[in-house]
Amino acid sequence: MPDRFTPPAAPVGIDGLIALLAKLPGLGPRSARRAVLQLIKKREGLMQPLARALADVAESIKICGQCGNVDVVDPCAICRDPRRDAGLLCVVEDVADLWALDRAGLFRGRYHVLGALYRPRWVGPDDLSIPALIARAQSPDLQEVILALNATVDGQTTAHYITDRLADCGVEVTALAHGLPVGGELDYLDDGTLAAALKARRKF
Amino acid sequence: MPDRFTPPAAPVGIDGLIALLAKLPGLGPRSARRAVLQLIKKREGLMQPLARALADVAESIKICGQCGNVDVVDPCAICRDPRRDAGLLCVVEDVADLWALDRAGLFRGRYHVLGALYRPRWVGPDDLSIPALIARAQSPDLQEVILALNATVDGQTTAHYITDRLADCGVEVTALAHGLPVGGELDYLDDGTLAAALKARRKF
Ligand SMILES: [Zn+2]
Ligand SMILES: [Zn+2]
Repeated sequence: MPDRFTPPAAPVGIDGLIALLAKLPGLGPRSARRAVLQLIKKREGLMQPLARALADVAESIKICGQCGNVDVVDPCAICRDPRRDAGLLCVVEDVADLWALDRAGLFRGRYHVLGALYRPRWVGPDDLSIPALIARAQSPDLQEVILALNATVDGQTTAHYITDRLADCGVEVTALAHGLPVGGELDYLDDGTLAAALKARRKF
Repeated sequence: MPDRFTPPAAPVGIDGLIALLAKLPGLGPRSARRAVLQLIKKREGLMQPLARALADVAESIKICGQCGNVDVVDPCAICRDPRRDAGLLCVVEDVADLWALDRAGLFRGRYHVLGALYRPRWVGPDDLSIPALIARAQSPDLQEVILALNATVDGQTTAHYITDRLADCGVEVTALAHGLPVGGELDYLDDGTLAAALKARRKF
């Protein structure tokens, strides 16, 4: 009975909000619509606090000049923390990996975020904050660099490259044990696997 | 080598943002962390616009006094639209169902949101905006009420109840055809199924 017919555009506010939420990883258009309905139901308890938290973090976010972590202060809370062991430096590909390791609460040192993995002819050492890593490795306090990189070809290439570059620095270079599933992405592992791999780390 | 150790709390800003995002349907703590990293990477293109859109919508959202839709204007854009057929009224359980039907672009009438389904002794007609529906059904323009309710026991109970209550109003009451999978939730159907069910609607 009814023909196909294009309804007038819904108000920009709600549609625009759905479109923005749908860009987040883990949310598509359908789940973004459900999220918006949920937000509208919880306007004071969720929607307004989320708006403020986003605005606050967007305003204050900084990349830590020492390690590459993101935080609302620079140096970041981890680099500032005097309880952290200055003798241990854990090298990770990206901030998601840093958060995954630190959330597990297994490691009491500091971090160094590469930003990417080494891929000869595509991503070079200067793209990876490797010069900054070498500079940090000169610190007389530093005793051990732990390579916490994905168990993938690029991860292992990067690990070998960094090991070569640090050979003259007088620090021990270790890598997470191959308790990681081969081909696995570090950020997807559970805390137990991360703990086992960290505990059994070996000289690289 | 390293013992288990509790790291200092990350800054409230980022952790608070992760906790708020993790409350959205479709996002858990892990995907909320990934979403926050994505937002931080796209601060100007995504994070700031999302903060503004949330604040704007939170500020301006209204429940339409005529149909129960949510919008930034009251009456809502659908109720205001003069191109909509005032002779057709589609009854839905909630706003998600209204959006699902309207997004499909199949229906050129107006809507009535019940807010819930009728469950004798638990949810009564006054909880369901059924009095408002009966009032709208008195309009001389109205010719047909289409019941677009879930093909569940509660949905069908509600459909029968509304049919009884509208018996004296002189409007035709139809229901979506049983092209819907039995037990299926209307909001999860694809547009094609919705179209078929709407087209084959029958006198109830
Ligand atoms: Zn830092
Ligand atoms: Zn309305």
